[in-house]
Amino acid sequence: MSALSTWTKSELEALQAQLTKELGLQKGNRLALDLTRGKPAADQLDLSAGLDDAIAGDYFAADGTDARNYGTLAGLPEARALGAELMDVSADDVICWGNSSLTLMHTSVDLALHGGLWEDGRRWSRAHPPKMLTPVPGYDRHFTICEAADIEMVNVAMTEHGPDMQQATRLAAEDPDIKGIWCVPKFSNPTGCIYSPECVALMADLPNKAAADDFVVMWDNAYAVHDFQFPKTPLSPILSAAREAGTENHVILFASTSKITYASGGLGFLASGANVVARVTRRLGQLSIGPDKVNQLRHARFLSGRLEEHMAAHAELIKPKFQAVEETLASQLGELDIASWSTPKGGYFVSLDIRPGLASRVGELAASAGLNITRPGATFPYGNDPEDRNLRIAPTFAALSDVKAAMQLLTLCVKLATVEQQLGGQA
Amino acid sequence: MSALSTWTKSELEALQAQLTKELGLQKGNRLALDLTRGKPAADQLDLSAGLDDAIAGDYFAADGTDARNYGTLAGLPEARALGAELMDVSADDVICWGNSSLTLMHTSVDLALHGGLWEDGRRWSRAHPPKMLTPVPGYDRHFTICEAADIEMVNVAMTEHGPDMQQATRLAAEDPDIKGIWCVPKFSNPTGCIYSPECVALMADLPNKAAADDFVVMWDNAYAVHDFQFPKTPLSPILSAAREAGTENHVILFASTSKITYASGGLGFLASGANVVARVTRRLGQLSIGPDKVNQLRHARFLSGRLEEHMAAHAELIKPKFQAVEETLASQLGELDIASWSTPKGGYFVSLDIRPGLASRVGELAASAGLNITRPGATFPYGNDPEDRNLRIAPTFAALSDVKAAMQLLTLCVKLATVEQQLGGQA
Repeated sequence: MSALSTWTKSELEALQAQLTKELGLQKGNRLALDLTRGKPAADQLDLSAGLDDAIAGDYFAADGTDARNYGTLAGLPEARALGAELMDVSADDVICWGNSSLTLMHTSVDLALHGGLWEDGRRWSRAHPPKMLTPVPGYDRHFTICEAADIEMVNVAMTEHGPDMQQATRLAAEDPDIKGIWCVPKFSNPTGCIYSPECVALMADLPNKAAADDFVVMWDNAYAVHDFQFPKTPLSPILSAAREAGTENHVILFASTSKITYASGGLGFLASGANVVARVTRRLGQLSIGPDKVNQLRHARFLSGRLEEHMAAHAELIKPKFQAVEETLASQLGELDIASWSTPKGGYFVSLDIRPGLASRVGELAASAGLNITRPGATFPYGNDPEDRNLRIAPTFAALSDVKAAMQLLTLCVKLATVEQQLGGQA
Repeated sequence: MSALSTWTKSELEALQAQLTKELGLQKGNRLALDLTRGKPAADQLDLSAGLDDAIAGDYFAADGTDARNYGTLAGLPEARALGAELMDVSADDVICWGNSSLTLMHTSVDLALHGGLWEDGRRWSRAHPPKMLTPVPGYDRHFTICEAADIEMVNVAMTEHGPDMQQATRLAAEDPDIKGIWCVPKFSNPTGCIYSPECVALMADLPNKAAADDFVVMWDNAYAVHDFQFPKTPLSPILSAAREAGTENHVILFASTSKITYASGGLGFLASGANVVARVTRRLGQLSIGPDKVNQLRHARFLSGRLEEHMAAHAELIKPKFQAVEETLASQLGELDIASWSTPKGGYFVSLDIRPGLASRVGELAASAGLNITRPGATFPYGNDPEDRNLRIAPTFAALSDVKAAMQLLTLCVKLATVEQQLGGQA
């Protein structure tokens, strides 16, 4: 096989006929395959069965707090210590509240907009409209927070080492209405890249470079310990870099146990400088009389001293699925030279770039044969991939055999859409 | 003993001397008594020890949902059914999300203000400022939500049968900036009254009478099943009344298991008309990828079919504390005719009204002898009791012997402050 771009019209037509026939056969199989969901599979969830034994009648935290009663807004000390381990910060920097880091992100953005994040008069809502930088492709739920809050999104290119910091810095320095940037610094959703030490240092300094005096780096470290290749790849600690740069109250870190224990049944964490931690804690005190500390105690006891071992067990289950994705992409698309894709060392996603203009078509073809893929465009603000070329593959939830079947079908659709396009161009 | 108002100056001076001496003795005891907290006591929390056994390796809801994974924003069917039992509505009317009804109240108010509660253009934030009716004395955390959101509070008098509906209706009908009313309809915080059927019917119709077309009744049924006198006192179901009045999307009900199982370690519930339920669910989908369904399953299994029995066990523990409060108030203050108080049949509070101008002084005297009472004024918006006379007594958290000691001390302080005032007036 050679690069598809070199094929003659009749060769392409023969391939199109063959692929169309294969797709027809697949349709006959009435498949129901799904690569949309960044969810742990049941065997991963089973790894946390010990959680349910962690209380064993003892509801008292190490400091004597009765976890069953109200209070302790910032979370139990042992839960904050767990968050500190995930985020590479001190327990004092951490709030543990709720089951969802997304909720804490929303709370932070809401404070920045309306209530004030620093106990002073600064409010994003005074900009018309406030804007945030969105490295693309990125995480659709960050975009949703912005859309729901009428924050305009300004795209920044992603590189293999994180966002293009030259572009991000220029944009932030030029426009005082640009109030922040969204980051998934380790195993970025969806490209899987890890921000380089240089990128982290520049990011910690970005609030100093921004024209806005209320600029915030939203550091969503959702996959902090989710390596499946070892030795683990480290991420530079941004909070200590921010302290050196004097920006620690303009960097907010997030993490959760959603893909460590139970998705939605775990703990959400936030970390930042002392002022922001105090302000967010005060806000959480308006929203609730405290977090679910029983679940905090359960998690702290279950994971204490064995987080690494626990995540290694996840890696064992996840890695073969990512290998299957990579192998199918390489064997089916590699020599044709019609796509490029990420080969992450951890996290939950593979990012697949195909030829411009084809992602929606591939989505249609796949759906017609019973394969759901993440809606093309979802990795861009407003659901708008300007080149219509990026696809996000989420292989963790499906069984390995289904991942293999799904990838065969997906690559078939990519080939067919590409041949169609090339023939159209030649016609 | 006779009414204090009939006492002569020398009698009063003798009593003052005696009370001052008693208070001095109490100070010597270095007490640390606390009647501030509407929290369950440890023996009440122990009643829910069975929660921790409710999962027993089976994480699947009745409909087959794996409680350990993402999704199911409105909550598991069995958890919604539990909420329906608490709120006297159908499971379809219910959202079960998070550990705190307060968070759901905040989310509702935030939507009404900014995002829209009915998928149309109505926004409370267009009023300058928006206002809400606050029956007083009332619950300080409702006031905090308003203060944090810059909603002005307009007081309405409480009667023994609920808010003064004539006053509430007149205010709402006159001022289009009045956007809602806060209610604790059963065992109201702090007066303990239960809204009468007439009051509930008028409340369900209030959105029709209001000048604002976006008026909302916030129905915080925190003590729905928290009777300690039997037979239980029923509360008229407002949602069905609202459906008859065509206002079901202008009435939002809240409940939680905070004082049923674990305070903060339980479930929060919201119920309303279908439009509001759909809108709030969509909002919760922007804030999270779903609630903690493992805890939902735990609660639904633990409480299913035995809620009544479980609450009766709470009543056994709570009732003697309320009796001690009532007995001490009657024996120490009754014949002097210097105070009036509520005698609730459930809930968590007793409301004590003393002579105008004395609540702060009683708070000072009590604190000087080691007794913390809820900050005088806390039961009014902005912490401002215009008559400085209402005190909230929360007897559940302390041990029975401490409740008795605390009530002796509190009534001593009430007597002393009243004598001081009466002597000042006579001087």
